[in-house]
Amino acid sequence: MLAETALAELRALFGTQMSIAPAVLAAHGQSESLVTAGLPDAVVFPTTTDQVAALAKWSSQHRVPLIGWGAGTSLEGHALALHGGVVVDFRDMAAVLEVRPEDRLVRVEPGITREVLNHELRSTGLMFPVDPGANASIGGMAATRASGTTAVRYGTMRDNVRGLTVVLADGRVIRTGTGAPKSAAGYDLTALFVGSEGTLGLITELTLRLHGQPEAVMTAVAAFPGVAQAVDCVIATMQMGLTPARIEFLDVETVAACNAFSGLSLPLAPQLLVEFHGHPDGVAEDTRRFRDIAEGFGADGLQWAERQEDRTRLWAARHSAYRAILASRPGAKAVVTDVCVPISRLSQAVDETRADIAGSGIPGPILGHVGDGNFHAILLVRPGDAAEFATAKTLAARMADRALRLGGTITGEHGVGFGKLGHMEAEHGAGWDVMATLKRALDPLGLMNPGKVIPGRTGDGPA
Amino acid sequence: MLAETALAELRALFGTQMSIAPAVLAAHGQSESLVTAGLPDAVVFPTTTDQVAALAKWSSQHRVPLIGWGAGTSLEGHALALHGGVVVDFRDMAAVLEVRPEDRLVRVEPGITREVLNHELRSTGLMFPVDPGANASIGGMAATRASGTTAVRYGTMRDNVRGLTVVLADGRVIRTGTGAPKSAAGYDLTALFVGSEGTLGLITELTLRLHGQPEAVMTAVAAFPGVAQAVDCVIATMQMGLTPARIEFLDVETVAACNAFSGLSLPLAPQLLVEFHGHPDGVAEDTRRFRDIAEGFGADGLQWAERQEDRTRLWAARHSAYRAILASRPGAKAVVTDVCVPISRLSQAVDETRADIAGSGIPGPILGHVGDGNFHAILLVRPGDAAEFATAKTLAARMADRALRLGGTITGEHGVGFGKLGHMEAEHGAGWDVMATLKRALDPLGLMNPGKVIPGRTGDGPA
Repeated sequence: MLAETALAELRALFGTQMSIAPAVLAAHGQSESLVTAGLPDAVVFPTTTDQVAALAKWSSQHRVPLIGWGAGTSLEGHALALHGGVVVDFRDMAAVLEVRPEDRLVRVEPGITREVLNHELRSTGLMFPVDPGANASIGGMAATRASGTTAVRYGTMRDNVRGLTVVLADGRVIRTGTGAPKSAAGYDLTALFVGSEGTLGLITELTLRLHGQPEAVMTAVAAFPGVAQAVDCVIATMQMGLTPARIEFLDVETVAACNAFSGLSLPLAPQLLVEFHGHPDGVAEDTRRFRDIAEGFGADGLQWAERQEDRTRLWAARHSAYRAILASRPGAKAVVTDVCVPISRLSQAVDETRADIAGSGIPGPILGHVGDGNFHAILLVRPGDAAEFATAKTLAARMADRALRLGGTITGEHGVGFGKLGHMEAEHGAGWDVMATLKRALDPLGLMNPGKVIPGRTGDGPA
Repeated sequence: MLAETALAELRALFGTQMSIAPAVLAAHGQSESLVTAGLPDAVVFPTTTDQVAALAKWSSQHRVPLIGWGAGTSLEGHALALHGGVVVDFRDMAAVLEVRPEDRLVRVEPGITREVLNHELRSTGLMFPVDPGANASIGGMAATRASGTTAVRYGTMRDNVRGLTVVLADGRVIRTGTGAPKSAAGYDLTALFVGSEGTLGLITELTLRLHGQPEAVMTAVAAFPGVAQAVDCVIATMQMGLTPARIEFLDVETVAACNAFSGLSLPLAPQLLVEFHGHPDGVAEDTRRFRDIAEGFGADGLQWAERQEDRTRLWAARHSAYRAILASRPGAKAVVTDVCVPISRLSQAVDETRADIAGSGIPGPILGHVGDGNFHAILLVRPGDAAEFATAKTLAARMADRALRLGGTITGEHGVGFGKLGHMEAEHGAGWDVMATLKRALDPLGLMNPGKVIPGRTGDGPA
């Protein structure tokens, strides 16, 4: 609950750009994950960096937490108000501020979604390729270091955010990065804030690196005799120097769900969906070479699609996979997991995970961005079934442990939020203490998205 | 001067792995730059991370600065003992610890040089492409966020360091990154230490991303009617989606120096040296497309070379450019500058810089990694001529100011050291204060390479 003077001051700052209506608070108290938490005390809809800076000063003065909000698509409870406070919803800061085609840069506000951004870029011949699946906000994607299907070629948000405007906990505004493609001028503050999940400051503007829209696109789907062959095909593809724009794995359960949901008739076998971007001659050569590699690993029924409508059909399986999997167990809710391992251990990681899920009694199809060693299980639980939910959480925890044992990470792209706090010490050891030190240094009052990445309300860090 | 007890304890830790011999101190009190500074009090040659950790504890106890040392090739005084202390020379930590071909990773100690590393990798089909010119140590390259000729395709050290072992100021050891290609698990500590120039900790191990040795390589040199046409050709090449492995600019003064030094007969005109890597068909297609683009900008005398010996000849001009430029003014010393601008402003930046140098009375050929907007002037001064040195420093300062005015950075790849401290506030504003805050948080006693990146002995940061 906000004190009366604090609330009055907040009203003075935001006027009609704020709400304490129960429905608005409730809408900002849930996310796509099954994680639940307390409600915020207020939601504000800023329109300028200055307004966010004033909010941060207000927050420091009244000791009220601030939680950034993009499109609400995070999966580990990133944007939930664990300790109350004010949710900062960037829906009204969603403009494209400047496109610089010669420098392949665009400057945007954080609330713009990736689909809207690419729609606005369509006439420029350029695109912002990072695609986490959900139509997330660009600010949220930066804050969680998102990636997705195209990271294997175009990189993650780490690679595609060139600079930021950040409002710090005390209300100072900093600008990181420059318009130059690289810099060696001091600490990499851009990289520090990308992936910090709003715990070090609030991103109010981003400069993004753009890429040329490909002249030619070719997509294929290939069925393999087993998981190992599909994964080995990925390894060989990367080692041959091919750079697919996407290379996605679907296990047989995912394929079955997609067939049922989308009316497809893909062979019931592990599949790779692959896409090449580039100059027409280069793409043709890449597709020839990929066919040779895939056939060497026993791939059958390779289907290629160069026409947009055929590509759409082939990618339908992937794009609707999450909904297809949800539909495969009517009424179920999903616990979505996310781990990433060295590609040499991917086959083992997927095999062990499949075996673990098979023995658990709940369904959990697996799919992922295997060019990066990144995969997910969509663990399906009956709503309100505490035992199944516990089973899912245990499976997810074992996936994280397994990823670490195999030299990987507890999260490839979904981030920590508070859902993965319990695994941070195992991954980082003393490095987590260093993160807590950085948090305390930049947010000594512990008001920036408290309880995420670093546990605790006060920013005191790992116990 | 080290106190007697401190020295005795240091001897106990390092035995014969240390020196206070004047010649050794002197050798670690100068660098390739013209910058001079005080000498260290001792030089140690550790062989293990544990030894470096013990050294850091000793340093904290006795309040003695520690300065990391790789190959001594830095250009802004990064490794000089401004406030005395112990130089940590990593020459005896120079091993390849592990090669993981399937994951395209290598784990190395920091003292290994890039040439030795690539020599050791030659039978694997893989390479570490980052090439700053000098045969720098990998640890030093990470510490300065180095890049060089190949960054336009393969990225900088920011993009190619996957993980680090770092000894912190208090002797704690952390490991950053994992074997997975990406992670969203908390703050990006790897990126924080890459480019921190030894001011936040000492890097004692690195995991690097490797790339396939290209099946085919094609090199060309092309002469243009003017700087603008050469630069516009670069912009068009990048916009067409071509990804040269190198695309280097030489101004006419550099070409003249190279002709004289290497016995070449390149046309006296601005030149681009370009190299494509990849599958033979792709490289052939890239070279065809580049020729069309270059000819559209008036390029003349395009020479291509696919054979190793021909490539060597063509790149001779570039590889020996620094020595060639030095030789063009017998006895001269060089003040080497480094700025990076948005590629759309590169032509203007080079033009204005050339005009500024032309009016200064000292020679200053220009060359650079123009695919990144990064260029250098090699300002030639008579040793001991204070007026010429002052002129060079003024030109360099104006280059940095110009880069900022054009939306770029004061250093693309050489780093800050203490040579560029005076420009940091202009580039970063309040962001520099944030860097000082991070420095204080991780090095409260101000003992890690004091006076670099952040001014002052105590780590108190910008005044």
